Amino acid sequence: MKITLAQINFIVGDIEGNKEKIIAAAQKAKGSSLVVFSELSLCGVPPYNMLSYNDFIDRCEKAIDEIAEKCDNIPLLIGAPVRNTTGKGKPLFNAAIFLHQGKRQIFKKKNVSYSTYFEPADETNILQLGCMKVAVTIGEDLYNIGNDEFLMTNRIDDFEEKPEIIVNLAADRFDYQRAAKRREILRMTALKHEIPLIFVNQVGGNANLIYDGGSMVFGYNGYIVKSLPFFQEEVSTFDCELFISMKKEDEQVIPEKMELIHDALVLGIRDFFHKQGFKKAILGLSGGLDSALVIALAAKALGAENVLGILMPSQFSSDHSVSDAIASAENLGCPYHIVPIKPAFDTFDEMLKPIFKDMPFDVTEENIQARSRGLIVMAISNKFGNILLNTSNKSEAAVGYGTLYGDLCGSLSVIGDIYKTEAFELCRYINRDKEIIPWHTINKPPSAELRPGQQDTDSLPDYPILDAILYQHIECNKSANELIALGYDEALVNKVVRMVYRNDFKRFQIAPVLAVSPKPFAMREMPIVKK
Amino acid sequence: MKITLAQINFIVGDIEGNKEKIIAAAQKAKGSSLVVFSELSLCGVPPYNMLSYNDFIDRCEKAIDEIAEKCDNIPLLIGAPVRNTTGKGKPLFNAAIFLHQGKRQIFKKKNVSYSTYFEPADETNILQLGCMKVAVTIGEDLYNIGNDEFLMTNRIDDFEEKPEIIVNLAADRFDYQRAAKRREILRMTALKHEIPLIFVNQVGGNANLIYDGGSMVFGYNGYIVKSLPFFQEEVSTFDCELFISMKKEDEQVIPEKMELIHDALVLGIRDFFHKQGFKKAILGLSGGLDSALVIALAAKALGAENVLGILMPSQFSSDHSVSDAIASAENLGCPYHIVPIKPAFDTFDEMLKPIFKDMPFDVTEENIQARSRGLIVMAISNKFGNILLNTSNKSEAAVGYGTLYGDLCGSLSVIGDIYKTEAFELCRYINRDKEIIPWHTINKPPSAELRPGQQDTDSLPDYPILDAILYQHIECNKSANELIALGYDEALVNKVVRMVYRNDFKRFQIAPVLAVSPKPFAMREMPIVKK
Repeated sequence: MKITLAQINFIVGDIEGNKEKIIAAAQKAKGSSLVVFSELSLCGVPPYNMLSYNDFIDRCEKAIDEIAEKCDNIPLLIGAPVRNTTGKGKPLFNAAIFLHQGKRQIFKKKNVSYSTYFEPADETNILQLGCMKVAVTIGEDLYNIGNDEFLMTNRIDDFEEKPEIIVNLAADRFDYQRAAKRREILRMTALKHEIPLIFVNQVGGNANLIYDGGSMVFGYNGYIVKSLPFFQEEVSTFDCELFISMKKEDEQVIPEKMELIHDALVLGIRDFFHKQGFKKAILGLSGGLDSALVIALAAKALGAENVLGILMPSQFSSDHSVSDAIASAENLGCPYHIVPIKPAFDTFDEMLKPIFKDMPFDVTEENIQARSRGLIVMAISNKFGNILLNTSNKSEAAVGYGTLYGDLCGSLSVIGDIYKTEAFELCRYINRDKEIIPWHTINKPPSAELRPGQQDTDSLPDYPILDAILYQHIECNKSANELIALGYDEALVNKVVRMVYRNDFKRFQIAPVLAVSPKPFAMREMPIVKK
Repeated sequence: MKITLAQINFIVGDIEGNKEKIIAAAQKAKGSSLVVFSELSLCGVPPYNMLSYNDFIDRCEKAIDEIAEKCDNIPLLIGAPVRNTTGKGKPLFNAAIFLHQGKRQIFKKKNVSYSTYFEPADETNILQLGCMKVAVTIGEDLYNIGNDEFLMTNRIDDFEEKPEIIVNLAADRFDYQRAAKRREILRMTALKHEIPLIFVNQVGGNANLIYDGGSMVFGYNGYIVKSLPFFQEEVSTFDCELFISMKKEDEQVIPEKMELIHDALVLGIRDFFHKQGFKKAILGLSGGLDSALVIALAAKALGAENVLGILMPSQFSSDHSVSDAIASAENLGCPYHIVPIKPAFDTFDEMLKPIFKDMPFDVTEENIQARSRGLIVMAISNKFGNILLNTSNKSEAAVGYGTLYGDLCGSLSVIGDIYKTEAFELCRYINRDKEIIPWHTINKPPSAELRPGQQDTDSLPDYPILDAILYQHIECNKSANELIALGYDEALVNKVVRMVYRNDFKRFQIAPVLAVSPKPFAMREMPIVKK
């Protein structure tokens, strides 16, 4: 018996296009006893409130009929929302639908705890595939091994009769720890129940969320007997004879952290642009590390010729900031323009003089520079249709080191979920074979250059210390008191935690941030008005 | 027997301050057999991910001990998070805690379906208050009367023994339909079970969310025998003898829609500022209706002297836009400055000429004007510490009629949840006794004045038609096809729905919007990348 894993990059809401992708993959898998797609494959994930439109569900139903008709001889398991017709509870189920020769069987997700639209499964049924009993599960239905308090069900325990294969249709988002964690959870599930397990994950970027694929099959002994790549589509068939293998037939190789983050960000940028029909990007190039890193990632994702750098030096810019910025574009082959901002700064200075009178230079004038730059890149973006990439990192976002409507402009934040120290590491990873990002950019002290001689360390601690505190506070949920008890300097901890606490209003207004960590700010909603 | 309702304005996270407010209210209610506070009164609502910090819960526990000690002789019911020590499920319960003479009893919320932190109640217990059995419920535990699919439990059905009084601690947010709906649901609950019902709601604004108070007591016959005001704090005691009354002793008077929205917005602005320690606001005054409405609301909330208007006419501004803007500030007594933007526009034009060459005037130049204005008000905001109010309305937000980092700047969107036609109505309500908002502003055709002779209707349908389509699409979840079937013009519907669909990226980046409708955009999360 042969089974096919279809790890495909779907577009949210593109029911027609996703249907075509499903049909094409199914045609390729003719002869398989089952073709397995990922969770909510038909509508894309996450569909959010598109699910609130009746039409949307109608269109899914129609597409299911068409798939059933066109692939009549190919047994399929696809993911889609289906209506809850029980008259009780939320309006939909998150379902896996088995289609074959006019037969249709629905399997519902149970662990839907955070959903507005999905009612938990009201039944537990088995898919009879030839002589095999298959437990069809969806996403988090499987993840509760051990003591994860937040996930209370493990679907396999619900079956009265023990199934012979477990299938899981997933849309499990990427973070740099996730692949290893996920593999262990799934392996333990396979081992605990002594059943082969087939896991099919979505791949692709959908705004801030990146799905990394990495679908795989575990045999009876918990060995991986088939694995699909990370970050790319693949439709691949395996023979169920492999289930009984006593060795790792096709062990999944998980890349190291920086390679994972790199590949995730490149996929995230590419899909953000191409899925919306955009081709060209624009960004401000300061000569600093963050913009140099983002232009390198964008050039990789979109092609160097499609990424336009804008240098906007001021009277406070050092010489090397211009030469480094030029080098970062030229190393890649990206086009660039230079627009010095002094005329804008002087004009606003003049316009505001009647109101500001002789008040001293302060953060206002720093922000005027950042916002003049924002205005210029947005103007070029508007005129030529290039989409603006934001270049802030997570350390800056955490402490509010950035100007709203200035350097915080942009449609997509590329590195907003990696700390400055991780940005350094990522640059070194990119430069592992040759200089792509100018080494001088990587090695010089970071500066916003909004005042004469300014350096980041004037108002922030050194990044390794700052990032350690931030990681403990944000990723590990340690409060200021707990951090002090851990031995961090009291004054410093209080300062940093207060900065994090005060800048929720800024983070509220920035672009979607490509999520690569276990705790991106987007998933850490905080009150804006609080004490 | 006397019971006290404590309808109080708490601050999220201000455990110390909220504790003091609880103690002060309790002291005032000495002699009562029970003082009832609102849901999560101790920590404020919504606490979001502040709940993820251990310290936060520790501080709540400590505050509960202090309240118990200081109010030992006053029986209290307060709302607070408590730890889930069962070892299973999510880490906290959303609880009501009864405190009296060393006794402590905990009542847990059951209907917590959308929460990340709260485990549903694992028990149903009764508060024995003298000879009375009291069912203590929290928020949505009570709301499931009839066929509301989304709320599946009605806590009262869980009790083995019928209680004699129902108490509900609530944090039920305002929308302009909510007070009437809530009153009917609660009345039906009281009537269905033939039990008196005490409902205590939070009051106050917490960023985008506004809680309207309107606490009330129903007697056996479903008549309201005690009601507290909307939009203000009140601690008030009633005698339980009123339960048997055969008439409306103190019927709740629900104001009309525009009065409700007006009072909600004023409270929302005031609490947004004062709870964060801000005193002064700033906004751009265009001479149009939206900014004239926002300055009137802000002056009411903060005092006219604390609201600074900035007029920023361009070469495309009509004479009346300046005179109307001045009138809107002067009618209220607000200070204002005039900063013409031509110098900035000309400077950017010059700076960008080497790149733009002879390309024609388009949306780029319109946006340069809007963004120059954004830069100027933000500069004055930075220099003097005034917080910028955004003046976009819901119709504009829906179709993306506004410039990111331009007129979409601001820390709080005041009227972003009311449609343009509602903004007209609200202006007329404010002018009901005398001209506060210049009538000329209200009666002239709306224009963004970013091109010579521009009017909103150049690119948008008339607002009454636009708003009707938007209301059906957003509030009533009607798709384009359903709208066309309802008789709306096909081309128009498709155009409008497409505009709504394409502008999620803009709405993603705007400030918190004071929520006054049943469907604010903030509660309608949509994918940004989709098809």
